[in-house]
Amino acid sequence: MTWASIDLNADLGEGFGRWRLTDDEQLLSVVTSANVACGFHAGDPATMRRVCATAAERGVRIGAQVSYRDLAGFGRRAMDVPAGELAAEVAYQIGALEVFARAAGSRVSYVKPHGALYNRAVWDEEQARAVVEGVLLAGGSLPVLGLPGSRLHAAAEEAGLPVVGEAFADRAYTPEGTLVPRTEEGAVITDADAVVERSVAVARFGTVTARDGTSVPVRARSLCLHGDTPGAVTLARRVRARLEDAEVRVEAFV
Amino acid sequence: MTWASIDLNADLGEGFGRWRLTDDEQLLSVVTSANVACGFHAGDPATMRRVCATAAERGVRIGAQVSYRDLAGFGRRAMDVPAGELAAEVAYQIGALEVFARAAGSRVSYVKPHGALYNRAVWDEEQARAVVEGVLLAGGSLPVLGLPGSRLHAAAEEAGLPVVGEAFADRAYTPEGTLVPRTEEGAVITDADAVVERSVAVARFGTVTARDGTSVPVRARSLCLHGDTPGAVTLARRVRARLEDAEVRVEAFV
Amino acid sequence: MTWASIDLNADLGEGFGRWRLTDDEQLLSVVTSANVACGFHAGDPATMRRVCATAAERGVRIGAQVSYRDLAGFGRRAMDVPAGELAAEVAYQIGALEVFARAAGSRVSYVKPHGALYNRAVWDEEQARAVVEGVLLAGGSLPVLGLPGSRLHAAAEEAGLPVVGEAFADRAYTPEGTLVPRTEEGAVITDADAVVERSVAVARFGTVTARDGTSVPVRARSLCLHGDTPGAVTLARRVRARLEDAEVRVEAFV
Amino acid sequence: MTWASIDLNADLGEGFGRWRLTDDEQLLSVVTSANVACGFHAGDPATMRRVCATAAERGVRIGAQVSYRDLAGFGRRAMDVPAGELAAEVAYQIGALEVFARAAGSRVSYVKPHGALYNRAVWDEEQARAVVEGVLLAGGSLPVLGLPGSRLHAAAEEAGLPVVGEAFADRAYTPEGTLVPRTEEGAVITDADAVVERSVAVARFGTVTARDGTSVPVRARSLCLHGDTPGAVTLARRVRARLEDAEVRVEAFV
Repeated sequence: MTWASIDLNADLGEGFGRWRLTDDEQLLSVVTSANVACGFHAGDPATMRRVCATAAERGVRIGAQVSYRDLAGFGRRAMDVPAGELAAEVAYQIGALEVFARAAGSRVSYVKPHGALYNRAVWDEEQARAVVEGVLLAGGSLPVLGLPGSRLHAAAEEAGLPVVGEAFADRAYTPEGTLVPRTEEGAVITDADAVVERSVAVARFGTVTARDGTSVPVRARSLCLHGDTPGAVTLARRVRARLEDAEVRVEAFV
Repeated sequence: MTWASIDLNADLGEGFGRWRLTDDEQLLSVVTSANVACGFHAGDPATMRRVCATAAERGVRIGAQVSYRDLAGFGRRAMDVPAGELAAEVAYQIGALEVFARAAGSRVSYVKPHGALYNRAVWDEEQARAVVEGVLLAGGSLPVLGLPGSRLHAAAEEAGLPVVGEAFADRAYTPEGTLVPRTEEGAVITDADAVVERSVAVARFGTVTARDGTSVPVRARSLCLHGDTPGAVTLARRVRARLEDAEVRVEAFV
Repeated sequence: MTWASIDLNADLGEGFGRWRLTDDEQLLSVVTSANVACGFHAGDPATMRRVCATAAERGVRIGAQVSYRDLAGFGRRAMDVPAGELAAEVAYQIGALEVFARAAGSRVSYVKPHGALYNRAVWDEEQARAVVEGVLLAGGSLPVLGLPGSRLHAAAEEAGLPVVGEAFADRAYTPEGTLVPRTEEGAVITDADAVVERSVAVARFGTVTARDGTSVPVRARSLCLHGDTPGAVTLARRVRARLEDAEVRVEAFV
Repeated sequence: MTWASIDLNADLGEGFGRWRLTDDEQLLSVVTSANVACGFHAGDPATMRRVCATAAERGVRIGAQVSYRDLAGFGRRAMDVPAGELAAEVAYQIGALEVFARAAGSRVSYVKPHGALYNRAVWDEEQARAVVEGVLLAGGSLPVLGLPGSRLHAAAEEAGLPVVGEAFADRAYTPEGTLVPRTEEGAVITDADAVVERSVAVARFGTVTARDGTSVPVRARSLCLHGDTPGAVTLARRVRARLEDAEVRVEAFV
């Protein structure tokens, strides 16, 4: 049954050269899908290689976490990139990652935009289509992981690409089922117990409690865990353990 | 017969964003192998895509022109990159280019290091091996285009990769058959007629005239044309026309 | 008299490493103010040094052409850079250029944002203020060269910085005195004679002919010449010669 | 007396965008000289601004930690940068930092090369001279902090620049007074007590115990503390406390 199964995804490999951010080693023991940074907002070739090797070894699915070209801003600054350039940049990143996934005996299995590109592709038709064009360029009908109801998902479906919806257990939702913007009070849920319980609700019942207390449906086959905060690994482990206790199968989306 | 056939290779797609350097459109009507810049010393995704599309359309073979990560120095500054990083960087570049080659209905068919990496891999065992490791990581036993007798070729052969030797019609050779260093007087041959005649000698007889007047053998299945100088296209066309007049088949190496 | 004097500014030093774009050598014989690229959208330290040296030698005023950090997009892609970062980035660029201006016996005498930052600071209050904060950080009350009526100029004036308005002889104007957006037909005037005559009209009468034929006033002490197009030098020379014929003093703004 | 006074320097501001490395806030309470990263191997404008502000507030001297342009390699990969480019790059970095030092009411007071450039300038005449040319370009006769006996110091003295020697309490020395290369066993001293005692010996007696047990003189007015390792802050505090107990004045070099 759908409600009894969930994928856990997290951003990994988000260092660059001398710098580290995510505890890749630990998180790869918890998640079922690894969104690997491809060098545009973070990620360098040696890190990509290492993360892919560990992911493949542990049976964690490898996804391309594509981004604007913006190391200085960690891909968090929206950019007006012309569609043709953006599509090519997305394809470039997927291709670069594919080499390391294959060398590890695996494959790039999905694509998820990062940061500002993720947010922009929720509503910006042109950039959403450009990301999809990039995925098509890279070949192979890769699923696009993103926000249910986003322009990105609409564009992907139009192009015949599979889409996978994700939910955020640590983000507040509006009664309409959209995310409360980060600029608003209470947008991020910091209480670990609450995050754990919300994870179970998403996985078992396909619902989250909105900030007005109502229960809203979320179409999510994957749950996004954050890996770049202190305590991220501990919380991720608790979420996974609680899901398993609740008899939810934690497994990569098909 | 071997002597009656030669490949012509040139560096292409060596712009970046707003900047252009090589006349890709024209050179792709002359060469049989395109060394496409992969973004580390030059080349951006949109340019890579365009060059691959035109190359595929015209039956020009696509090669990955891999480089140190050095846009500011155009890959011409030798760098002490640790072997593991260098191997991963080489693989990353090949993978990124492969996406555009495939999208155009072609494939990356060979690898040629650029600039300072090319020169360093002639003698530096460790970097030569790292480049080869990068090619292996990228999969598929790609031939390595380079200087006959180089460490790079030795390392490639040791690893079971095919090697293809190239000659330079516009560079002076020592009686031992090595290139006269660019820092020495007369290292670069600027007389167009001489370049054209030397091209024929390499292709037909497998020889060049060294700077002491002796004829020295060169094992070259490919001739490198420079595309980033004024008059490059005109000279390239003359070389090709003269080769054809001399009944040399101009075709990609097998 | 004000109407009998005009400054000519152009973007210079817009190469990067191996790449060139602007004919700095020639343009520095025509313009009175050089907007020198500072390394964020174009410009490398050696180029900055060379351009500053020539500018100082010829009495051309040196300005900091500050930009988003975006080499791949040549600073032409609007970016949502947080105000604090943007201010620091602007100051960083001014400081870097100041070294070369001083080494040449000159000084950075003004600041002009480039490309997408220029356009954004016309209407975006937050980024306009951030640019001004960056100028203040750099010290010395530098004048801000920009579009008359822009948010950037308002913010600069509020902060006590001098502002200098510029006009574009090769851009169409609306009857309201604003620029016709580049996306519209006829936005760029390509007829060289027309550009020359419009230059004189701006300098002598402080007016341009709008696209509906009406004459509209422009408050411009400087005229922006484009240096990155073929024929740029020839056109710039014609503009300057015609201005001098018309007894307009071509000189840097005070 | 010289032996009763020592400067403590550390590399600071070595993050980039989202990434942090050094605990700037804590280290600025211990050191007397801050080697601030200038954006080429690490350091972004907003970080430079913040570090300069805190340093100025606490009376810590600000130095420009200049580097090769190599974010991906953290400036640790030797590069064959042509002298003219290197000089301009050094000047560029000093100028950029100067803006933030001045904005904080301080000044850039010295220059120290970072990583591979530091090591190379110990023996490479051409690069040593290029660094010095960069310092001269930046104006103001800044002292050069470096290894006593290095080419860099020789070139600086030749050019009339003050030099300041530094010692490393956590590095093994040869009986000749040079550093044991990092590639050799025991090159780095990890025992905290030993590091503390060696610091006192350098400051009080101008000596270190070489690895053969002999005492060798070191001409060092500054002691380099490492800030990018776990426990760095704790060790730095212990060194400072022990120096003060030993009646060594901890103060910036004049």
